[in-house]
Amino acid sequence: MEEIRDTKVSEGAPVSRRVRISDLADALGLTKSTVSRALNNYSDIAPETRRRVAEMAAKMGYAPMPYAQAVRTGRVRALGLVLEIDAPDRYGPFLAEFLGGITQEASLEGWTLTVASSSSREEMEATVTRLLQEHKVDGFILPRTRVADHRVDFLRAKHVPFVLYGRTGYGGPEHGLSWFDVDGGQAMRAAVLRLAGLGHRRIGFVGYAEEYNFALLRRDGYREGLAEAGLPLDPSLERLGVINRADGMRATEELLDLPDPPTAIVFSTDMTALGAYDAARARGITIGRDLSVIGYDGIPDGRMIDPPLTSFAVDSRQAGERLAALLIAQLRGAPAENLRELVEARLQPGGSDGPPVTT
Amino acid sequence: MEEIRDTKVSEGAPVSRRVRISDLADALGLTKSTVSRALNNYSDIAPETRRRVAEMAAKMGYAPMPYAQAVRTGRVRALGLVLEIDAPDRYGPFLAEFLGGITQEASLEGWTLTVASSSSREEMEATVTRLLQEHKVDGFILPRTRVADHRVDFLRAKHVPFVLYGRTGYGGPEHGLSWFDVDGGQAMRAAVLRLAGLGHRRIGFVGYAEEYNFALLRRDGYREGLAEAGLPLDPSLERLGVINRADGMRATEELLDLPDPPTAIVFSTDMTALGAYDAARARGITIGRDLSVIGYDGIPDGRMIDPPLTSFAVDSRQAGERLAALLIAQLRGAPAENLRELVEARLQPGGSDGPPVTT
Repeated sequence: MEEIRDTKVSEGAPVSRRVRISDLADALGLTKSTVSRALNNYSDIAPETRRRVAEMAAKMGYAPMPYAQAVRTGRVRALGLVLEIDAPDRYGPFLAEFLGGITQEASLEGWTLTVASSSSREEMEATVTRLLQEHKVDGFILPRTRVADHRVDFLRAKHVPFVLYGRTGYGGPEHGLSWFDVDGGQAMRAAVLRLAGLGHRRIGFVGYAEEYNFALLRRDGYREGLAEAGLPLDPSLERLGVINRADGMRATEELLDLPDPPTAIVFSTDMTALGAYDAARARGITIGRDLSVIGYDGIPDGRMIDPPLTSFAVDSRQAGERLAALLIAQLRGAPAENLRELVEARLQPGGSDGPPVTT
Repeated sequence: MEEIRDTKVSEGAPVSRRVRISDLADALGLTKSTVSRALNNYSDIAPETRRRVAEMAAKMGYAPMPYAQAVRTGRVRALGLVLEIDAPDRYGPFLAEFLGGITQEASLEGWTLTVASSSSREEMEATVTRLLQEHKVDGFILPRTRVADHRVDFLRAKHVPFVLYGRTGYGGPEHGLSWFDVDGGQAMRAAVLRLAGLGHRRIGFVGYAEEYNFALLRRDGYREGLAEAGLPLDPSLERLGVINRADGMRATEELLDLPDPPTAIVFSTDMTALGAYDAARARGITIGRDLSVIGYDGIPDGRMIDPPLTSFAVDSRQAGERLAALLIAQLRGAPAENLRELVEARLQPGGSDGPPVTT
């Protein structure tokens, strides 16, 4: 931490020493403890005393250390996170791990996390503006990068540092952006190759909403896997815009109702893959035997279900830690475009995939 | 919002006007925009310029509005939430809703939320101390009240305002505390009466870890329900310390293995009630017919499972909103002991409870 310097000078005089709580106490005829408690607005100090202390603090130019430091550095050492509370799946079961990662890493560096929420673009922009105006945040972590991401445009226009959870670059410019991402495309490719290796020739894909960058990257990974396995691309085997478990069930039923149905399906999220179990139960077929399924995320529900879901697990705690570390590095002056990290998801084998039934 | 007053005076002189960004700009020969961006540490301003601006700001006693206000009021208008990242169930699926409720309510009042995390008592205390010393938080929201809650003792000793999610008072003093709670005991009582009304005479109870106040309150509610229904209390039908789904499965199996097993079980959480479905599947019995089950929380997984779980639903968004409102009221001067709210959980009927099978 940098040294705190004096913040007040007499007109034209050399820099004087910082006003301390003991100075306020002397001036007011109160104990240091009472002054400190009054400044912190403790309820056991009478309102009148709190008012007197506040007025004297203002008069003498008293500023607590962090404010003094903030004035000098322009920083409050706070990361900002604006949650989109109407996100379709409400961040699933990852949020606690993700926040744990951010806050632990921030804490190690002496930073904190300010969380806000918004339910619309307008509210997000108003919230970000307020957090900046009130000096409550130095930079932002943006979850879930979109293909056309208005948050990126908004923060760049304001020259506010930020880091994205998820690459940009699907049809948009990448210049000067900082991000952390898990390579979902690579996982989808590996899932297809795994299924092809088991003997599957008709492999379906069920993807998320295409406004999100990761949904398109995963779809591309699936297609690369098909190409690499020498399997033809059949658009009728692809579904996008599948968000929740009920959607996943419907998409599975649609694929199974095709004239030449798939024997295996790769899902871009575990939550939607659980819908395949619902579809299988409804038809009396068995996951892992009659239909092979591979998911992505590694959620606890996938391990509890029978048979356990084969998935590519994402470490949400690590994601939070790395995003905090990258943003702090950027706020300390590292160029944003040097702050990019891509990690791989980890295969978590279950019992939901096996060789196709030969009929 | 209160009026911002001047924070700097010349020695002995009448209060002078606050130093403005335009004053810094004039003194430095820079534009106001450049000064503002330098103070906010924008990366398009050269480091040397940022340093010059920061030094002049310190020399002239410039303080941005919020700091000036904070100096005067001792407040930064930030609520604090310290998540226990090693909590056994990681706050389940409620966290996003809960945070959404807190941040939306705080935002309406012009406050923000600072989130930290800790994995031990020592870390929690160090984190709280740092947040207070750095003036990053005015008061705390404490989730999951414990029977012996060290956080309460710690914050009271520091005279820091806080509000609890969950009543205290199970064997401990209640004086002067502010809380919001959902009446889980009342829900457990209603669950027993509902099952008794269906004809069940042997009703088991599966409860959470008894270090948590709510676990004991729910157990008491179960016992009250039995007494009200005229059913005897049989300690062999009670289990405590049941945290997750696997525990719930084991507890169900233990109860079903009793010489005189229950025909219905009330679970203090939905997550553990889902374990009863696993136990039922393993034994080839049917939930809702061979075994009746009622849960508590209203989690999405309970609505997805077959048959849907009858549960008492908690509104986590409302909980977040009310906790934020109560803490802000307290920070504005309302006596903590007047700030208590108890609401009821809402019955969400499913297909998991029915009349007992007569053999």
